[in-house]
Amino acid sequence: MPYAFLLDLDSTTSNAPPRNLSQYAHGLFYHLLETIDPVLSKQVHAAKRVPFSLSGWSENSSVRLRIATLDDTLFRPLLHVLISKSVTGLELGQHAYQITRVFATPEGDRNAGVTSWPDLLAASERDRVTLRFLTPTVFTTSRSDGKRHYTPLPEPRLVFKSLLATFQAHSPEPYSNTERAALAAVFDEQLILTHFEIRTKPYRAGKNNLTGFVGTVQIAYPERTREVKRAFGRLAELAFYSGVGAKTSYGMGQVRLEP
Amino acid sequence: MPYAFLLDLDSTTSNAPPRNLSQYAHGLFYHLLETIDPVLSKQVHAAKRVPFSLSGWSENSSVRLRIATLDDTLFRPLLHVLISKSVTGLELGQHAYQITRVFATPEGDRNAGVTSWPDLLAASERDRVTLRFLTPTVFTTSRSDGKRHYTPLPEPRLVFKSLLATFQAHSPEPYSNTERAALAAVFDEQLILTHFEIRTKPYRAGKNNLTGFVGTVQIAYPERTREVKRAFGRLAELAFYSGVGAKTSYGMGQVRLEP
Repeated sequence: MPYAFLLDLDSTTSNAPPRNLSQYAHGLFYHLLETIDPVLSKQVHAAKRVPFSLSGWSENSSVRLRIATLDDTLFRPLLHVLISKSVTGLELGQHAYQITRVFATPEGDRNAGVTSWPDLLAASERDRVTLRFLTPTVFTTSRSDGKRHYTPLPEPRLVFKSLLATFQAHSPEPYSNTERAALAAVFDEQLILTHFEIRTKPYRAGKNNLTGFVGTVQIAYPERTREVKRAFGRLAELAFYSGVGAKTSYGMGQVRLEP
Repeated sequence: MPYAFLLDLDSTTSNAPPRNLSQYAHGLFYHLLETIDPVLSKQVHAAKRVPFSLSGWSENSSVRLRIATLDDTLFRPLLHVLISKSVTGLELGQHAYQITRVFATPEGDRNAGVTSWPDLLAASERDRVTLRFLTPTVFTTSRSDGKRHYTPLPEPRLVFKSLLATFQAHSPEPYSNTERAALAAVFDEQLILTHFEIRTKPYRAGKNNLTGFVGTVQIAYPERTREVKRAFGRLAELAFYSGVGAKTSYGMGQVRLEP
């Protein structure tokens, strides 16, 4: 089941915010995974599309972490170890932190939530999606020389092909190759940007200094094919849990679906 | 010589702003050209990349038109006919207007200016350009089915390939085919977006309702090839006169170079 929950942490040893939060949060996450199961941790690390997204904000000695998982095998043991660690404390960078609060539902915080894969697969058809990009977002594109390049623009095809790839990697019912190719072709050519208000924002994702965009983007599918509208609805719901684009495990590409 | 000048017009018969200003301004422009020389008017109309850009703003009974030309054969007779018409009046839509002011230099208005092709060709090398998109901007891209599509995003390659095509069409010293292809390849792959703050804005360009973007965009060329930096400098200077992207003769894609 896709889950997104928030942890409020407070440092017991320092008043200063952690320097490179995305790097430390990433490290903490894998450290926790390793505590649970070293094999699982290695598997997750090696996955082409990791089954979680992770972001954090800090204010003085307090840190809020958002952890979203797409996969039950990850969520349940993770919650278990977090609860046990909440007593002994967590390390984020060089300092010790204690969990002070957990938010697991949108009533507690609108960046938290839970859905089930059956519910997500049964998502309503849509011909329009408004996404609020909360943290800097980039897409990985490759150049003719094979070099990796980061694009900080909400091209509809990049947004939806990123979500489609994640869906294929983690949904219990992925599309067949033929269906996937047909959807990718539609996303390449038929989606339009109907509204946006965006700006660049620099971001340190682990060891990379990147320029991403934040803001609101509305994307529409103006044609009538129902299978596309259904996929559009599913992927829109998925985005809240998976994030969008590159470096979502370092806090980039966190989004919220707007009404 | 590339010129950009502004005309303030005041209606003598109506207090209402003209309904479809871009359409009427476009019509007025060709009407004036025809007064000068019917053959010239036809030639300009048939050009793949027209040698002028045109935009307008209105406030109550006042209209401000900005006319920018890339071509002496257009500017001098145009100015001549405008001066003679300033006595008898101009028609914009169903109403008569009189020219109340003309701005031809940046001291009068920062959207006016003049340069010469030799000066433009000698523009300083640049590795960074900040453009302020004053009116909604779109780029024409074609789909695999050949259908025309409008992209409202400042992809660096679209911005600079649009400017390069205009440069090739109107510069007295265009690049050779080999040089042009080399520059296009660099624009496709090596430019990066270092900053932007943009939003969509709907626009009626003649008979088309389009969604363009406005705002500030900074594009950088991070490599060292001097011929590219020189082209970057030239095209940045050209943008103020030519506009950027599609429908510049209907008021879209007007830009100002920021320091």
